[in-house]
Amino acid sequence: MSVRSTTLDNGMVVLTDDMPHLESASLGVWVKAGARSERRAEHGVSHLLEHMAFKGTKSRTALQIAEAIENVGGDLNAATSIEHTGYFARVLKDDVVLAADILADILQNSQFDENELEREQQVIVQEIGAARDNPDDHVFDLFQAAAFPEQPIGRTILGTVDSVRDFSADTIRKYMNRNYVGDHMVLAAAGNIDHDGLVEVAQQRFAELKPNGAPAPQRAEYRGGEERLVSEHEQAHIVIGFEGRAYNSDGFYAAQVLASILGGGMSSRLFQEVREKRGLCYSVYSFHWAFADSGVFGVAAATGEDEVGDLVPVVLDELKRATETITDEEVIRVRNQIRAGLLMSLESPSARAGQLARQQILWGRPIPMAETVERIGRITAKRVQEVAEQIFTAGTPTLAGIGPIGNLVDAGAIGDMLKR
Amino acid sequence: MSVRSTTLDNGMVVLTDDMPHLESASLGVWVKAGARSERRAEHGVSHLLEHMAFKGTKSRTALQIAEAIENVGGDLNAATSIEHTGYFARVLKDDVVLAADILADILQNSQFDENELEREQQVIVQEIGAARDNPDDHVFDLFQAAAFPEQPIGRTILGTVDSVRDFSADTIRKYMNRNYVGDHMVLAAAGNIDHDGLVEVAQQRFAELKPNGAPAPQRAEYRGGEERLVSEHEQAHIVIGFEGRAYNSDGFYAAQVLASILGGGMSSRLFQEVREKRGLCYSVYSFHWAFADSGVFGVAAATGEDEVGDLVPVVLDELKRATETITDEEVIRVRNQIRAGLLMSLESPSARAGQLARQQILWGRPIPMAETVERIGRITAKRVQEVAEQIFTAGTPTLAGIGPIGNLVDAGAIGDMLKR
Repeated sequence: MSVRSTTLDNGMVVLTDDMPHLESASLGVWVKAGARSERRAEHGVSHLLEHMAFKGTKSRTALQIAEAIENVGGDLNAATSIEHTGYFARVLKDDVVLAADILADILQNSQFDENELEREQQVIVQEIGAARDNPDDHVFDLFQAAAFPEQPIGRTILGTVDSVRDFSADTIRKYMNRNYVGDHMVLAAAGNIDHDGLVEVAQQRFAELKPNGAPAPQRAEYRGGEERLVSEHEQAHIVIGFEGRAYNSDGFYAAQVLASILGGGMSSRLFQEVREKRGLCYSVYSFHWAFADSGVFGVAAATGEDEVGDLVPVVLDELKRATETITDEEVIRVRNQIRAGLLMSLESPSARAGQLARQQILWGRPIPMAETVERIGRITAKRVQEVAEQIFTAGTPTLAGIGPIGNLVDAGAIGDMLKR
Repeated sequence: MSVRSTTLDNGMVVLTDDMPHLESASLGVWVKAGARSERRAEHGVSHLLEHMAFKGTKSRTALQIAEAIENVGGDLNAATSIEHTGYFARVLKDDVVLAADILADILQNSQFDENELEREQQVIVQEIGAARDNPDDHVFDLFQAAAFPEQPIGRTILGTVDSVRDFSADTIRKYMNRNYVGDHMVLAAAGNIDHDGLVEVAQQRFAELKPNGAPAPQRAEYRGGEERLVSEHEQAHIVIGFEGRAYNSDGFYAAQVLASILGGGMSSRLFQEVREKRGLCYSVYSFHWAFADSGVFGVAAATGEDEVGDLVPVVLDELKRATETITDEEVIRVRNQIRAGLLMSLESPSARAGQLARQQILWGRPIPMAETVERIGRITAKRVQEVAEQIFTAGTPTLAGIGPIGNLVDAGAIGDMLKR
């Protein structure tokens, strides 16, 4: 394994995977803080900070940041999720130090100028409008809210028009000072990378970070329930879900295997039953998203108004069947899919850098591929059935729907149908 | 350059780029036929065929096709565009022959069973609903229709609910026999690939293809005009465009450079002016899509109802400014972006295989990276301005809009504003 890891004086971990045959590298800083790290009055500030980090530092304007990386043909981007925020660049190998320098600058020296802030608040108001115009995205916001009501983990990442417009530069600074601390940040790089050189740069350039002290986010409490929005879309966009498994919990790997068997590809049960045998959907899939202390397991589908009534019972039948009929053949297929997927991700510097950073944040170390393969290899068909039974019958299901959903059952009825 | 090319007896070209350090490979067959190859009564048949190719052959059911590739952890997919259709797989290196065998099977022995056809027609009806529910996609269908009215190249790739429901297996077979001929097909592979081995497999397995005889599609005639759909979306989704440059035409590379300078990244003119200085949009970018005998050049943006009136003049000012103020610095930046993008694409087997196939189809040979870099290197700021002037003042502009677009000007007014 070519992965090397060094912990800096400030607690930040530097991880690299050298791929010497490449001409480029991907590198980024991932922070263990996201939407769920926000306090009540901070809804949307994680994402606003992720935008404002590109709007100027003590020594660079917003335009200079963009030009510095794009003049050498690189690109720079960022993304905010529920538990993490990532800032990442892809550059040619000679520009790795430049990229690291820019990342360090925007993460320690951003100015949050009032005029820039006002314009960026308008940009995010537009982004909120764009997200609401995409029902496939919007339905997941409703789903998360229904699963975790009245908690930061259930709120939208983008915030609301009102919350985003209200923020001052001071709110951003307080959130950043609290959460962007060395031992909650990982600098990960993959591609044509010199580990020792990157560590030296990082040691110098990230010297201003506070080493630790970030508070833990409010504990997630899955409750379930429903959120619906009747609208004039062509399709009913639906997500049905349950509490999933936390990263470090016992059933995590079995839940991952279950999600693949149910809806992970063309040979999966939902694709075969819902699309291939019945022609009810173009898109149907299942997912398992783990958090530090909870998770969600679900099925997403979209279908016409006339087909909604047929779709839900067919999906629920497949969930029930999964508690009793998982085959060894299916488990072996998923094992091969996960192994091949890991091998292929090792060949993409961007995928690889993100993977290393997430593993460090979630498990405290990079996980060797052989270890993941070995853990998946221990999952039996019987174990997948057990975890399916636990997931589908525990607590209240979650249901979210957007579109012509007059015929859609309610979350309580879904629970009853699954327990019958 | 590690690219090798062999032409089979049936005219199909086999292209490989060996990347021996990888554990995987991407391979696919790209066909020089797409939506614009359809006759009047065939609207949507290219895409329906692309779906039906996965629904069973003489020797494999749909489920067996899916399982054959997914059991070894690979995946198989396809996509239809205006001028091309691609069928591609990503697999581990030992499964390349398996993947080539499946591709050959689905492209020569598909059965188009009536029951499978009926279900797949329902699936595509759902896909059409999904596309109409995504305004960012839907507005591009309106745009293409406004630019090329009453021609196959201006019609939607998916077809309409009525056209798709009407097709028989015979319609699909006739379209396929006419267009899927050896000299219009490329088998391209990148990754851990043995060229001679793949050629041998292809020579055997693609023996049933007719070598040639596909008719040329109807010549594209750009006309311009507008299509609008007032709807209750949060944002006005707008595309403003003009006739672009065909692949082999004189201004092609200059138009590519122009699109990058105007709206290709964070340092681009539209991003800086529309988003960074004014906060009018979350998403704004420009694009140049070339076809064999025409092209479209455009700007896409989404903004709130109150901001539409401001947005259009700002965009048009940037288009006008581009006819006079392109700098050497901008041209150099785009040159570096294109060079870095090419180098990075050489590192991704999927990107690389698709690139080789497209180059073969468009230019009749794979284009060495040095040649593309050299051609881009010859484009001067003055040349970009000339091509901008030609593009923005020739013919009628095209305008498409979806959402609260009551305040949106018409296409004629756009033409007038640009000529002033």
